Amino acid sequence: MTTVGVLGGGQLGRMLGLAGLPLGLRFRFLDPAEAPPAAAVGEHICGDFDDPAALAEFRKEVDVVTWEFERVPFEAAAALAPFVPVRPAPGLLRVMQDRLEQKRLVRSLGIRVAPFAPVHDAVSLEAALREIGTPARLKARRGGYDGRGQARVDRPEEAEAAWRQLGEVPAILERHVPFRREIAILAVRDARGAQRLYPLVETRQSNGVLVRALAPAPDVDRALRRQARAIAHSLLEALDYVGVLAIECFELDDRLIVNELAPRVHNSGHWTTEGAATSQFENHLRAIVGLPLGSTRPRGVSGIVNLLGDVPERASVLAVPGAHLHLYDKRPRPGRKVGHVTVRAGGHGQLRDRMRRIESLLPSRVSLLRTEAPPPAAGSLHGPSRLGPVAAAEVRP
Amino acid sequence: MTTVGVLGGGQLGRMLGLAGLPLGLRFRFLDPAEAPPAAAVGEHICGDFDDPAALAEFRKEVDVVTWEFERVPFEAAAALAPFVPVRPAPGLLRVMQDRLEQKRLVRSLGIRVAPFAPVHDAVSLEAALREIGTPARLKARRGGYDGRGQARVDRPEEAEAAWRQLGEVPAILERHVPFRREIAILAVRDARGAQRLYPLVETRQSNGVLVRALAPAPDVDRALRRQARAIAHSLLEALDYVGVLAIECFELDDRLIVNELAPRVHNSGHWTTEGAATSQFENHLRAIVGLPLGSTRPRGVSGIVNLLGDVPERASVLAVPGAHLHLYDKRPRPGRKVGHVTVRAGGHGQLRDRMRRIESLLPSRVSLLRTEAPPPAAGSLHGPSRLGPVAAAEVRP
Repeated sequence: MTTVGVLGGGQLGRMLGLAGLPLGLRFRFLDPAEAPPAAAVGEHICGDFDDPAALAEFRKEVDVVTWEFERVPFEAAAALAPFVPVRPAPGLLRVMQDRLEQKRLVRSLGIRVAPFAPVHDAVSLEAALREIGTPARLKARRGGYDGRGQARVDRPEEAEAAWRQLGEVPAILERHVPFRREIAILAVRDARGAQRLYPLVETRQSNGVLVRALAPAPDVDRALRRQARAIAHSLLEALDYVGVLAIECFELDDRLIVNELAPRVHNSGHWTTEGAATSQFENHLRAIVGLPLGSTRPRGVSGIVNLLGDVPERASVLAVPGAHLHLYDKRPRPGRKVGHVTVRAGGHGQLRDRMRRIESLLPSRVSLLRTEAPPPAAGSLHGPSRLGPVAAAEVRP
Repeated sequence: MTTVGVLGGGQLGRMLGLAGLPLGLRFRFLDPAEAPPAAAVGEHICGDFDDPAALAEFRKEVDVVTWEFERVPFEAAAALAPFVPVRPAPGLLRVMQDRLEQKRLVRSLGIRVAPFAPVHDAVSLEAALREIGTPARLKARRGGYDGRGQARVDRPEEAEAAWRQLGEVPAILERHVPFRREIAILAVRDARGAQRLYPLVETRQSNGVLVRALAPAPDVDRALRRQARAIAHSLLEALDYVGVLAIECFELDDRLIVNELAPRVHNSGHWTTEGAATSQFENHLRAIVGLPLGSTRPRGVSGIVNLLGDVPERASVLAVPGAHLHLYDKRPRPGRKVGHVTVRAGGHGQLRDRMRRIESLLPSRVSLLRTEAPPPAAGSLHGPSRLGPVAAAEVRP
């Protein structure tokens, strides 16, 4: 019996458990929350990530360690490594937690990113503005997620206020990219180097929070797919990566520009539970415990609608054909990710209809599928958004 | 938050939990074992079904009760009924636990069964022999499952020995039916009377234990499907049934003869997790908690290979395309159901090849797909079996 230790016990941990129990795996989660979502599918060690006693208890009888969110302190993962394999490698956390380091790494591999420059004081802010220009975004190097730790800089004179808004923490100034759409690349690699790529995913974010996704993304030609494969391949190999890696991109002029990496299973891959031959959760586990990777082929077309803030009436959701409900057993709170609905359909037209039906059931009643362009939402991450306002997200991805 | 109480904590309870957690359900299992398979997905109350204190503890904060195997004492389910809805209805257990009552019920609905007669002493045995003839089977009225509590009566002079072998317990003598194949009907009904039928399943048993299944069963014409639908409809309505009902049948001369009912999710339906739009586990839960039933449509063709006695090397199983592993976290023991493999494929030819690959990995190395007919296996349940010997099954379905 193999026991997987997971740093973090949120919904991603819960879904790892649901996917892993049938493989004969057992789970142990370290999470400071009292009753985190993953506690339903494994043993929960309640403790802080930087508590040596909690870490010692956690690693007992654990055969391999992974994490379900990347803001786990690097030191915690590193402290476990002498005792138990940690996959992906703990060193990755350092790079992933620092937006500047992450961007530099990606760029060093010859992968396109939006122009960026470091900011750590008034002088460097001035220099960055000259180099990068506007419109741009000022983003905190650490601790940003789901649209937090970011500020718009549409004109140079907004830069100082943005810098103060961020708390004058180390940051980067990044050129705004007028993207056509957002694309997520989901890839998985095992310890022997075998790689698999899921079909590309078209995602929609609102205020930096994923609200919906379609997979396989429509209108993907071979060239785009080839680019995605090359990006994934470079990153997986350069990082000697083991597990699922999510790569969030902008598509513009038939090119992919990498926006952000998530070294873990990812919201944009939740459709794989019903919509792919092997889910991202199962493939992540297969990779880290040394089982052969499963097929990443799609099964029809699928979409995800995130449930933010509260859960709509379950019966109404399940009455929509092709809808699969995934609740995280989290207390409702404005903007909090409390679940998602995977919708399957015979084609993209039918899928859009069904997703629209699901979205009409959401508490906010915001249609997220408007095709006419409303004015940009106030806190929108990147330029004009076609999505209506969505409340700010909660602490966990 | 709805909590489902499940009587029994075996693998069926475990799979109910895996299907139900995403629906936002919580689980509580009552089981006398110390660490039953279902304990991984819910709270486990360790106690006997006839222990009033355990039952009282179990029903606390439980919103609905179901069972995962039908040998739960009727009295236990009935004792819970004044406090919490029990679905299906507890009264069913009485009928289902008595082979004679079950046969009489089925026959009373105008559904075909093999000719049978009750046996409770030497005189009634003699009378039954005259009425039913041979070849026949003597089957204990109570406690029989997975081929246990049964004895062959190929010739009249074997009857007395068979009766002694059974321990001279109340029994029925049942005519042997020279069936073409075994077919399982899986149906589900909710409390408002809505019904859904899964595609018919072709099953193979060895010594009364299911060893493999194919779904949708090949060579099913509309007439056979119509018969199956009529049988399911009659039973579901007559029993005012809520949940999944499995109906094991023999097919001969294009007719279905009902062999046995299982008032619960069933081994012959395990393929539905990957092979149907909604799994039997999810639909059972939807029915009992009052959510709308999900589609029972197949997704391609699927098969199940049961893992009996021990688990083959996981990596070899997962290396077979289309294979999905389901382990129950049970200690290996000869003949024990410790898991199953669902195999999906593009067609029945490919499916058979893949299932053969899985079966070649099984510890016993018995090919269960031989097409030439070997001599009948010694303990075979019904006439010449095309399957090799399989060890006796364990206590739970």
